[in-house]
Amino acid sequence: MKLRVYYEDTDAAGIVYHANFIKFCERARSELFFSSNIQAFTKNRHFVVTSINAKFIKTAFLGDILEIKSKAKEIKKASIIIEQNIYRIASIEKPLNKPELVFNADIKLAFVLDKKPAKMDKDIIDFLNKIS
Amino acid sequence: MKLRVYYEDTDAAGIVYHANFIKFCERARSELFFSSNIQAFTKNRHFVVTSINAKFIKTAFLGDILEIKSKAKEIKKASIIIEQNIYRIASIEKPLNKPELVFNADIKLAFVLDKKPAKMDKDIIDFLNKIS
Amino acid sequence: MKLRVYYEDTDAAGIVYHANFIKFCERARSELFFSSNIQAFTKNRHFVVTSINAKFIKTAFLGDILEIKSKAKEIKKASIIIEQNIYRIASIEKPLNKPELVFNADIKLAFVLDKKPAKMDKDIIDFLNKIS
Amino acid sequence: MKLRVYYEDTDAAGIVYHANFIKFCERARSELFFSSNIQAFTKNRHFVVTSINAKFIKTAFLGDILEIKSKAKEIKKASIIIEQNIYRIASIEKPLNKPELVFNADIKLAFVLDKKPAKMDKDIIDFLNKIS
Repeated sequence: MKLRVYYEDTDAAGIVYHANFIKFCERARSELFFSSNIQAFTKNRHFVVTSINAKFIKTAFLGDILEIKSKAKEIKKASIIIEQNIYRIASIEKPLNKPELVFNADIKLAFVLDKKPAKMDKDIIDFLNKIS
Repeated sequence: MKLRVYYEDTDAAGIVYHANFIKFCERARSELFFSSNIQAFTKNRHFVVTSINAKFIKTAFLGDILEIKSKAKEIKKASIIIEQNIYRIASIEKPLNKPELVFNADIKLAFVLDKKPAKMDKDIIDFLNKIS
Repeated sequence: MKLRVYYEDTDAAGIVYHANFIKFCERARSELFFSSNIQAFTKNRHFVVTSINAKFIKTAFLGDILEIKSKAKEIKKASIIIEQNIYRIASIEKPLNKPELVFNADIKLAFVLDKKPAKMDKDIIDFLNKIS
Repeated sequence: MKLRVYYEDTDAAGIVYHANFIKFCERARSELFFSSNIQAFTKNRHFVVTSINAKFIKTAFLGDILEIKSKAKEIKKASIIIEQNIYRIASIEKPLNKPELVFNADIKLAFVLDKKPAKMDKDIIDFLNKIS
């Protein structure tokens, strides 16, 4: 998934506010499901984030185009770890020779069915296996 | 209601991102209800914003302390207009002699009961009359 | 400009948080400049929002695809009014027969050069005339 | 530091959006410095987040009052690890017998002087020792 950095994403230090990389990761995870035909976010089923292990490698700036790559790293019965890497692929300041890794995170998600932790349904497991 | 401007509220221009003043106004409106004993935000009843008429008078900065003053300007059966003014009352950069008006808005809200526009309940009307 | 509604854009009422429509409008205005070759956001020149007159017509939901259309409505020497309309063009809940207008705003912007209000440079005026 | 959960902090799942706990932690860290007389955020000096190790223990809800407790866990010459715990101390839904831990994180920050990593100034080290 690609996205542009807008004013709302930046802060007074002139860089992308750190917590917004976590938001970008969620956009990318949701888009994976929205773009497939898996209804993962309904009233009775969705995921909750249970842990984040993140490294902020480089700063990102207004106008940058970022690409988020997501991979199912560990698939258990009721939870998954998704590894997400964010790369800068374009900048309005200067041309880039190659994508630069700006952020890396392992994000653990638990599956929730009717407000309780539950085993993931087969359609979701199958989908996650495709992105592993 | 008073609040501090943090990094998340600012943008790469070094000032409070304009849409965040709209968020600050909502915090102040919600706090009015939370601080009273009026249950205005339940599963079956809440308000939705239907129009905003806002003036951005001065910029605000990281570390500023802002005060939001809210007043019911027009109370109809199913909607209200709240006038909200945001003042800077302290700055980490320089001492202030007096509060400075930074933002003004008339915000129109419609009452929603069971997902439909509806007349406001008496407890809400009574409360709004107190802040008019 | 098209965008998807993600979790971060929604609130506990299950709809897009009202102030986020204002953010979406800013993304679209910035993208107009980023996509052209006009350097409108540099250390010494940018725009500030001075007023917003917005109508919230329909609610928008998680997974909706929105399209923002922007038009220079009034171009003065040192300020502009941009009219922005946001349409829902797709929904994950149900198919849409045609785009639905969800939000409309007139947003007034003042040009800032070296931290002071200033007449807009010719390249910017020329660009704005193209989108009027 | 105490704060209330407002609509902007929640998402369509009816809970505080996960990345907002990271924002709350930053508010609390900034407030530590704002409330002291340490000028830690100036044009030439500030901190950047380099890693986050976070656990999301319980969900939080609209109207909750949260308290963030921060402690300098490891102070090196050019970086620190701050441990931050977020507790729910009040709820609009039901009375609480005691604070509930909802979020825990170790957040590593690097000191930046004139845009480069640098050893922390003595006033900052002294202050951090007080909160360790």
